[in-house]
Amino acid sequence: MEALPVIVDCDPGHDDALALLLAAGDPRLRLLGVTTVAGNQTLDKTTRNARRMLALAGVAGIPVAAGCDRPLVGDLIVAGDIHGESGLDGPDLDVPLAGMPRVADVHAVELMRDLVAGSPDPVTLIALGPLTNVALLLRTHPDVSSRLRRIVFMGGSTERGNTTPYGEFNIVTDPEAADVVLRSGLPITMIGLNVTHQALATPGIIAEFQGMGTRLGAVCAELMTFFAGAYRRNFGFPDPPVHDPVAIAAVLDPPIVRTAAVPVAVELTGTHTRGATVVDLHRRTATAPNADVAVALDVDAFWRLLMTAVRKLGAAAG
Amino acid sequence: MEALPVIVDCDPGHDDALALLLAAGDPRLRLLGVTTVAGNQTLDKTTRNARRMLALAGVAGIPVAAGCDRPLVGDLIVAGDIHGESGLDGPDLDVPLAGMPRVADVHAVELMRDLVAGSPDPVTLIALGPLTNVALLLRTHPDVSSRLRRIVFMGGSTERGNTTPYGEFNIVTDPEAADVVLRSGLPITMIGLNVTHQALATPGIIAEFQGMGTRLGAVCAELMTFFAGAYRRNFGFPDPPVHDPVAIAAVLDPPIVRTAAVPVAVELTGTHTRGATVVDLHRRTATAPNADVAVALDVDAFWRLLMTAVRKLGAAAG
Amino acid sequence: MEALPVIVDCDPGHDDALALLLAAGDPRLRLLGVTTVAGNQTLDKTTRNARRMLALAGVAGIPVAAGCDRPLVGDLIVAGDIHGESGLDGPDLDVPLAGMPRVADVHAVELMRDLVAGSPDPVTLIALGPLTNVALLLRTHPDVSSRLRRIVFMGGSTERGNTTPYGEFNIVTDPEAADVVLRSGLPITMIGLNVTHQALATPGIIAEFQGMGTRLGAVCAELMTFFAGAYRRNFGFPDPPVHDPVAIAAVLDPPIVRTAAVPVAVELTGTHTRGATVVDLHRRTATAPNADVAVALDVDAFWRLLMTAVRKLGAAAG
Amino acid sequence: MEALPVIVDCDPGHDDALALLLAAGDPRLRLLGVTTVAGNQTLDKTTRNARRMLALAGVAGIPVAAGCDRPLVGDLIVAGDIHGESGLDGPDLDVPLAGMPRVADVHAVELMRDLVAGSPDPVTLIALGPLTNVALLLRTHPDVSSRLRRIVFMGGSTERGNTTPYGEFNIVTDPEAADVVLRSGLPITMIGLNVTHQALATPGIIAEFQGMGTRLGAVCAELMTFFAGAYRRNFGFPDPPVHDPVAIAAVLDPPIVRTAAVPVAVELTGTHTRGATVVDLHRRTATAPNADVAVALDVDAFWRLLMTAVRKLGAAAG
Repeated sequence: MEALPVIVDCDPGHDDALALLLAAGDPRLRLLGVTTVAGNQTLDKTTRNARRMLALAGVAGIPVAAGCDRPLVGDLIVAGDIHGESGLDGPDLDVPLAGMPRVADVHAVELMRDLVAGSPDPVTLIALGPLTNVALLLRTHPDVSSRLRRIVFMGGSTERGNTTPYGEFNIVTDPEAADVVLRSGLPITMIGLNVTHQALATPGIIAEFQGMGTRLGAVCAELMTFFAGAYRRNFGFPDPPVHDPVAIAAVLDPPIVRTAAVPVAVELTGTHTRGATVVDLHRRTATAPNADVAVALDVDAFWRLLMTAVRKLGAAAG
Repeated sequence: MEALPVIVDCDPGHDDALALLLAAGDPRLRLLGVTTVAGNQTLDKTTRNARRMLALAGVAGIPVAAGCDRPLVGDLIVAGDIHGESGLDGPDLDVPLAGMPRVADVHAVELMRDLVAGSPDPVTLIALGPLTNVALLLRTHPDVSSRLRRIVFMGGSTERGNTTPYGEFNIVTDPEAADVVLRSGLPITMIGLNVTHQALATPGIIAEFQGMGTRLGAVCAELMTFFAGAYRRNFGFPDPPVHDPVAIAAVLDPPIVRTAAVPVAVELTGTHTRGATVVDLHRRTATAPNADVAVALDVDAFWRLLMTAVRKLGAAAG
Repeated sequence: MEALPVIVDCDPGHDDALALLLAAGDPRLRLLGVTTVAGNQTLDKTTRNARRMLALAGVAGIPVAAGCDRPLVGDLIVAGDIHGESGLDGPDLDVPLAGMPRVADVHAVELMRDLVAGSPDPVTLIALGPLTNVALLLRTHPDVSSRLRRIVFMGGSTERGNTTPYGEFNIVTDPEAADVVLRSGLPITMIGLNVTHQALATPGIIAEFQGMGTRLGAVCAELMTFFAGAYRRNFGFPDPPVHDPVAIAAVLDPPIVRTAAVPVAVELTGTHTRGATVVDLHRRTATAPNADVAVALDVDAFWRLLMTAVRKLGAAAG
Repeated sequence: MEALPVIVDCDPGHDDALALLLAAGDPRLRLLGVTTVAGNQTLDKTTRNARRMLALAGVAGIPVAAGCDRPLVGDLIVAGDIHGESGLDGPDLDVPLAGMPRVADVHAVELMRDLVAGSPDPVTLIALGPLTNVALLLRTHPDVSSRLRRIVFMGGSTERGNTTPYGEFNIVTDPEAADVVLRSGLPITMIGLNVTHQALATPGIIAEFQGMGTRLGAVCAELMTFFAGAYRRNFGFPDPPVHDPVAIAAVLDPPIVRTAAVPVAVELTGTHTRGATVVDLHRRTATAPNADVAVALDVDAFWRLLMTAVRKLGAAAG
């Protein structure tokens, strides 16, 4: 079986970092490129963090392009309280510059377009940050983007949010971009907090990373240790949820995430709810479904996938 | 110990009907009056239903006044799909007109004002429908309403809604009225779907009503049987939640409902979320708490209270 | 011909003050009562100002009732920059308390209801401030208010506003109340800034008041002199517009104001335009007309009416 | 003196057509390129119309690129009632395909970027349609767009609108794009309906076009004759306003349009006012100015400019 061609658009971010490892380390995916966006931190930081993680994973040959430095509408607000000043606080991530993939001199949207247009097989676009780059791709290149196989994004929730009572960070950061994606008519899968809050980096998980005996395993353990502290301080959670790798898992092993085809709208005008994903789970209106929304997660299978990928990359990287 | 003076404002409604029985049948409350509002059905129907339930309960001496026939702003949308054409479909509720309390020739707001102004002890106002009458009391009689002991309302949710994905029926029906109440500065308790969805009229509960061997018990069983069908059809719930009596229980036996003092805002401008109660449970902002929001329910204790009241009233009514 | 029975609801305010004189001084109107609302200043000040003007005009027998001390939704913001600390800054308005009409011990809404219900002829309700009291009358007494002949209000604009770029003070202060009135289905006349900005108290007008040689004429001159300063400072207008008397004139001599039957909506959710009256003058949509909107004013005829009334009252008061 | 380098982004459209002639025919401007956007008609039609007008004007060497086929957020609604089925109804515009400039195979945003980056002198960007392309340029290429000399757009109003009571077509079609432009911090000039409604194609103007005795003059006369009919039918205007050329005139001869530096916001959340430009002319708030807003037009000078350009191009084209 052919590996599935994917592009990952991200804003690392602790959980984005693990997601990159899963995307790069599982042989069922072919990672065509990585694009970055402002979100968890500013664009220069998320771009540097993406390059550092790819270098640590020993997959430096992948093209990387920086995208938008702010949302479509309004100002950028980063999540320094959750991801720290660097966007990837915790471990010592000094990586030799030479080992890092260089940044393409085209915009993320142009790299996406070129990769999608140039791929013989339809590409799956996995978005782990605010959907700014993805929305711009849809608006500026409707012909190319209609050739996408699917867009899978981590964001939103069928229940409560994490940035406002009903708003999740990625969607609240760029609600208009999410609206463009969800109203595009393309096949969309939404991986929201309602499932990612089950993928918890417990002390046992952190110990498993540490116990791998590799530099990469240790980095993962340190990332999760920092992340756990941030979630304790900000939300009183005993263990931190690793949101983004769930979106990768949903692509490479779909049965891990159960979805429902339902209508999803993005609240754009709410005073207290701007950026909420409004999911009509009970189909109380006649609106047609526009997304497959994750409603259940096989937590054990998820962690097995992620551990296998990190172990493999760590061993290869030496 | 003195019985606590209360006024019940309601729009019966199946669960309102049980709430009236609990308010009338527990000796710890002194039911000063009942006021009605449009909501589950039109005002004439909710008023007739309130009178029928009071007559059935043998408590015809209580003053009843009809209030607003539509929300402060916008048009009335009733819940005929949930409560039927009469607002209280299911049992045969033919009650002799002579046995029903007559309707006062003053508006609900005037009856409330008179009862509050005339009570030596501060009155607790329990609202079980849209908050239209309560908001008008606060706006037209600020001096009198400042003498209220507390306003306890059934409405809203800390999680998902039942009328829209994030909106509960009572608040969605009159969001501006809820905003007035929640920003009044008075002591407010909110009993939302997050707890009332635990108070389920299971087949065992319905059997217990039926087994009382009284006309009132049989009526309750028939009301809940109809209600169960409506919830199965509309939401796929196995058993129907009896929302409103939880608000009465929270007044007469406060430990039954655990609350948290948190900020609650009502979404007034959302395209998809108008009427959502936005509850900042994690206190992510510096806003001061303005309500005690129910977060947990002692389900067994709740049903014991309700059964005791219905049994007592049923026996007395013969 | 019978005098037309009217109730004036107001928040004096310099231009309200002149409007009360016109309503009290023209024999074609029978002023049944005056109700007050918070707006240009707080309720206690607007109530006192209404009583002072009626006393100065020698018409102390008219019932006065105080109404709402804040808008239906949200907080009150007064116009101290325009009307001064007292709401009627400028002249020395020391009036013997004994000469002032006393304040009824019923709420404005109850006085309105009683006057409308008790009048053999349909009553015209003229509203010169935020529409809070009027909206409450419509909501709490739909049967009585359906007997109104017409509601004429000063507020809104077909063009720019005065409080925000598209919002006029009375409507911006209570947009929900204006929405209730405009969607009531009753006959409504809107007198907006687009015509009242033509009724300017020029130096010639002020001199005419002064030249009457009466206490009342002098008070009017002093009120307009203060008002002129406020408009110069705040808007750079050479002369101040006297908004409210235009609404009275439109009732007692309809040809003075030309109107068009058009759809009018109130913007409730705009971030920058909340409270704008959105008037579809060109009938670009299929919406049915819900108001007669003033589009032209006979300025000379207007001033003749007002001068005649002030001259008559001033002479009678001695 | 050097000619000023400009890019024109447009959606022809009758008045866009005249604007292209002015931009191409006045020697003080150097037209670097023309980009198109969906608005008055669909993207394929506005692109074809731009090419036809350039061919008729004999300026076929200018690069043309097509841009966005819909607004940033929401669906496209075209103005077929004003500009006809073709977007340029009226004259017979059969132009030999060979004579038309070909469409570049890059997106409008990429052509803009290349032209701006490649120009030794700062480029003025003149936008005559919805601001979709311009907003995308700002978001995807912040470094390049910061080198713009100025953005001048036709759109909005300080008074009433033409598509909704307070909304002008270009801004109502893509309010988010206008918001991005107005909050960009770049020098912005807004040419709104309040001035363009003074630039009327009277019968005398149409006769002057006709009297030129050239094909181009006849085409202009026929365009304006159709346009006059559309404005009579839709708005009851005796003569049609030619909006877009005023923006060109404001660039090539600035004193023709008097401007005021004031705050301008775009209403994004209004139910009835979405897309209104909210211009704080009286500086009632402390907000800093973000645009030079046109407040007066030298009508005669404007028509002299336009006639001179059309005469010159018509003579050259033979």
